[in-house]
Amino acid sequence: MTAKAAIDFYFEFSSPYGYIASQLADDFEKRVGRPLRWRPFLLGPVFRITGQPPLVEIPMKGEYSKRDFLRSARMHKVPYRHPAKFPIGTVAAMRAFYWLDDQDPARSRALAKALYRAFFVDGIDISAAQTVVGIAKSLGVDEAALSAALEDHALKERAKKEVDDAIAANVFGSPFFIIDGEPFWGVDRMPMLEEWIRTGGW
Amino acid sequence: MTAKAAIDFYFEFSSPYGYIASQLADDFEKRVGRPLRWRPFLLGPVFRITGQPPLVEIPMKGEYSKRDFLRSARMHKVPYRHPAKFPIGTVAAMRAFYWLDDQDPARSRALAKALYRAFFVDGIDISAAQTVVGIAKSLGVDEAALSAALEDHALKERAKKEVDDAIAANVFGSPFFIIDGEPFWGVDRMPMLEEWIRTGGW
Repeated sequence: MTAKAAIDFYFEFSSPYGYIASQLADDFEKRVGRPLRWRPFLLGPVFRITGQPPLVEIPMKGEYSKRDFLRSARMHKVPYRHPAKFPIGTVAAMRAFYWLDDQDPARSRALAKALYRAFFVDGIDISAAQTVVGIAKSLGVDEAALSAALEDHALKERAKKEVDDAIAANVFGSPFFIIDGEPFWGVDRMPMLEEWIRTGGW
Repeated sequence: MTAKAAIDFYFEFSSPYGYIASQLADDFEKRVGRPLRWRPFLLGPVFRITGQPPLVEIPMKGEYSKRDFLRSARMHKVPYRHPAKFPIGTVAAMRAFYWLDDQDPARSRALAKALYRAFFVDGIDISAAQTVVGIAKSLGVDEAALSAALEDHALKERAKKEVDDAIAANVFGSPFFIIDGEPFWGVDRMPMLEEWIRTGGW
């Protein structure tokens, strides 16, 4: 018996819908019987290609979105406090994730959840590397090793390649799922993705 | 017993997701027990405010959307052929709708369905007034009266006010639903809207 191929789960650490998806991910994975491969990326470089400003800055749509972040979180029973500073840069969070992911994917997932919780529940601005390191340390990660890695060119290139790969895969939003080449954008498309898996697609 | 307040159902005649929503609308209305008030509007003036190009012209997102139009239609068992010329101007379609709607909302709804079917199933470019009039005629609408009305300043103002009202209500996409002041954007949010009605909101 071969292992079932993973579903790529792309998300950006500053994305409310990515955060909500991360909270639903474990149950989703169990229900559909396919593993999720967590892939943080950066929306900044994507928005430069698509010509889009951050969602909350788009006239009309921005106001709707701020209301919908809260409403969607309540619907899914996910704790959510809209961050005072939003959106933020998340390159340090992403780099830390991949550094840990190369060692232990289970721990990188725990780190992703902790980073998301810090930003969207505890109101902590996670843009600074030292903040990311502090959160990682609270999970037992080697503080000195991570701090050094975050300054290292190799990790920067490693993480940049993930963003390039996401863009090459046409990932333009967060969350974004790709299963066997089929793309699904948005936390509100997770039911459609689930139905796709259950039925084999249509 | 008072009549249940209507849910505003905004749509643009050149919108694939608006078309799919229109095909789901009658069953939806029966299930939720609240009438839908069909309100066509124009995305052009909205996009000038939001700074967005038409969906299919957005890099990355455009390709995804074209795939998703077809996939969403198949999921809902709605016939769909992506129009050769797309998007198109739909001001004549919208004006004809409101002209008929002021006389008989049931007939304007039938006209909306016929216009959508012509564009998204039969591949007919419905941008020209004479095409709209021809489709209306096939439903028994007075051809001469509608043709005259489409040239009339009063109808242009009547329809323009609808677009202005939609924008004032922060309607930035198609389809868009507003129930008791609560906005829902997208055909993929119809299940959320239905749950909102069923539970009274959250």
